Amino acid sequence: MSPEDKLKELGIELPPAPKALGSYVPARKAGNLLFLSGILPLVDGELRREGAVGRDLTLEEAQEEAKITAINALSILQAYAGDLSKVTGCVKITGYVASAPSFTEQHKVLDAASDLIAEVFGEPGRHARAALGVNALPLYAPLEVEFIFELKD
Amino acid sequence: MSPEDKLKELGIELPPAPKALGSYVPARKAGNLLFLSGILPLVDGELRREGAVGRDLTLEEAQEEAKITAINALSILQAYAGDLSKVTGCVKITGYVASAPSFTEQHKVLDAASDLIAEVFGEPGRHARAALGVNALPLYAPLEVEFIFELKD
Amino acid sequence: MSPEDKLKELGIELPPAPKALGSYVPARKAGNLLFLSGILPLVDGELRREGAVGRDLTLEEAQEEAKITAINALSILQAYAGDLSKVTGCVKITGYVASAPSFTEQHKVLDAASDLIAEVFGEPGRHARAALGVNALPLYAPLEVEFIFELKD
Repeated sequence: MSPEDKLKELGIELPPAPKALGSYVPARKAGNLLFLSGILPLVDGELRREGAVGRDLTLEEAQEEAKITAINALSILQAYAGDLSKVTGCVKITGYVASAPSFTEQHKVLDAASDLIAEVFGEPGRHARAALGVNALPLYAPLEVEFIFELKD
Repeated sequence: MSPEDKLKELGIELPPAPKALGSYVPARKAGNLLFLSGILPLVDGELRREGAVGRDLTLEEAQEEAKITAINALSILQAYAGDLSKVTGCVKITGYVASAPSFTEQHKVLDAASDLIAEVFGEPGRHARAALGVNALPLYAPLEVEFIFELKD
Repeated sequence: MSPEDKLKELGIELPPAPKALGSYVPARKAGNLLFLSGILPLVDGELRREGAVGRDLTLEEAQEEAKITAINALSILQAYAGDLSKVTGCVKITGYVASAPSFTEQHKVLDAASDLIAEVFGEPGRHARAALGVNALPLYAPLEVEFIFELKD
């Protein structure tokens, strides 16, 4: 099943790729690696939720936001590569969760992004990951997620 | 001297590789690069110390924890590659230290991880590095460390 | 126009490359990628400003510091490669801004580094980027910035 068919099966329609928030590009290729810029959970250019997880957002709400960053990553990938079947896998996800000092489940937040990527790309979609807490993010976003994918030659 | 002999000389016995804490893999290869997931200083699946450096841990205690993350990285490497002599070097270490706002010696904490990696692999074990402070980490861990290694073809 | 000529046109003279603050190297090559260590805005080995943006530094002051990290990155590149024309582009910048919890313009801080890199290398200097806030950094620095460049074979 192609990644696009898998998305259809999951009932996910990719939105237009979010634009960069400054002097950078959404994705940059080097060899077979495609480095995506840090992605915020923007929907139609707006954050749906703001602030720190464990204070302003629950774990479940943060997981919804993490899934949105993964959907945005897929939009950027599709805009870059034209076709998700050119993607041979996901190498690494690094997720920064705006966190109340007492919040210690950043890894559970990120699972929602990791799960979607693995569902869409299958075994090659399984990736290394780091999940961190931070005290502040651009636009008061609850999280920001970076992705490294691997592309065909 | 092989990395395994060097470890024996240092009196270090590698523990079983720590398991992933969610929907990701401990290590993912892309080309000759091996990206390791963020590693916590778990010993037998448990943190020995929790909290922020400069408040709950001293610099010296944090350095002990950093050394444990490097040992865990070597365990993951060995489990992945079968044999540490397949590793041609360490490319990059990124260390996130849970920090009291007044703690500013994250680089000294990370030296304990960097030193061990360089001792085990010699000159090719010397790497680029970033050392950062953060306000929160998974499981209330005092630090989390990412590694990128280089493998033979 | 060569990167060196571009720097001259911009009135920028590269300082000596800053030294590592511990057991790591300023730059490490793997394949065609050159990973630079996290760079602080040191001038002659000293920070000009300390503390958190949004509390101790304004956005404009932080942008000046971000530009200094980019200049330091170019110094490290030149020391490593001998000649900036051996650099085929910039792949990724990750910037960690020491932030008051209410500061949410980390991306605007980093633009000052991104703009300089793009001016010096032209279109191949345009890169992926992540901009994060953190609560603490080595030496009480206001920011730390990592770069991945691409080199000729």
